[in-house]
Amino acid sequence: MKVLGIDPGTAACGYGIVHGSGGRLRAGASGCWRTAAREPLDARLLTIFEGVRALIAEHEPDAVALEESYVGADARIALSVGQARGAVLVAAAAAGVECAEHAPARVKQTVCGYGRAEKGQVQHMVKLILGLDAEPRSSHEADAFAVAICHALASPLLGSRLLEGAR
Amino acid sequence: MKVLGIDPGTAACGYGIVHGSGGRLRAGASGCWRTAAREPLDARLLTIFEGVRALIAEHEPDAVALEESYVGADARIALSVGQARGAVLVAAAAAGVECAEHAPARVKQTVCGYGRAEKGQVQHMVKLILGLDAEPRSSHEADAFAVAICHALASPLLGSRLLEGAR
Repeated sequence: MKVLGIDPGTAACGYGIVHGSGGRLRAGASGCWRTAAREPLDARLLTIFEGVRALIAEHEPDAVALEESYVGADARIALSVGQARGAVLVAAAAAGVECAEHAPARVKQTVCGYGRAEKGQVQHMVKLILGLDAEPRSSHEADAFAVAICHALASPLLGSRLLEGAR
Repeated sequence: MKVLGIDPGTAACGYGIVHGSGGRLRAGASGCWRTAAREPLDARLLTIFEGVRALIAEHEPDAVALEESYVGADARIALSVGQARGAVLVAAAAAGVECAEHAPARVKQTVCGYGRAEKGQVQHMVKLILGLDAEPRSSHEADAFAVAICHALASPLLGSRLLEGAR
């Protein structure tokens, strides 16, 4: 099973691919698309859309996983996150890849064992779980890996296999 | 000059094409895409994306026009509107069509002569300006026409020609 995790944002959009097989999770391509505020909005969103589309075409993930948006008090931020999410969801749907959303607390619970873990803990645990040489460079990349890990472990087939592998 | 106006929303997304030539504005295709809340979000956004893409392919507008989002107090609504806007902007950008945003007050000022006009006034004035047989069926369709009219009149070339036509 291969999951493409995305942490959507217009200025910085993290991505990370997680493969699960033989009772193990390992990391695939990962990174962060950054776009400048001086660029037109449609061009910034197209960068994200094309990025997701290219990753799906190259890596053929079984699913795209995103965190359910935490809707804070700031409507301006919610609008901006919404636009980036729209670009990601449309790219996945246009490619016919399943989209899954997981609550932020569930992602943290899965990755850190604690639903209110800090960003630093997520970066640390992602490194451990995926056996990376170093922590992901950005928290966006780490968050993308984290939601992909959460989705991979939530899959009934893979989740139970991984549990067997861990026994 | 041909402008595709869009009033983005996930549950209901209005569209209306406005042609400007020979000192006159007239209406092209218009309508409203509606998606059901029980459908998955990515499928709903794909309906909007594919709808915009098909209209651009068929009608080859010079620009896509949207209202700048009014960011109210409700972050939940802002997130939802943002997602629909993302789908629209990506469809336009992927097709290489210019995207333009106009402030809601400016759209109302242009169409109704008053920046704080009510929805009913916008529907009424859109019918008059475009010479429609009846008011647009939905306020989403009327709002899409209104922003398209605003953009067509904001174009220096067409705007002045239309003013000449009106003299």
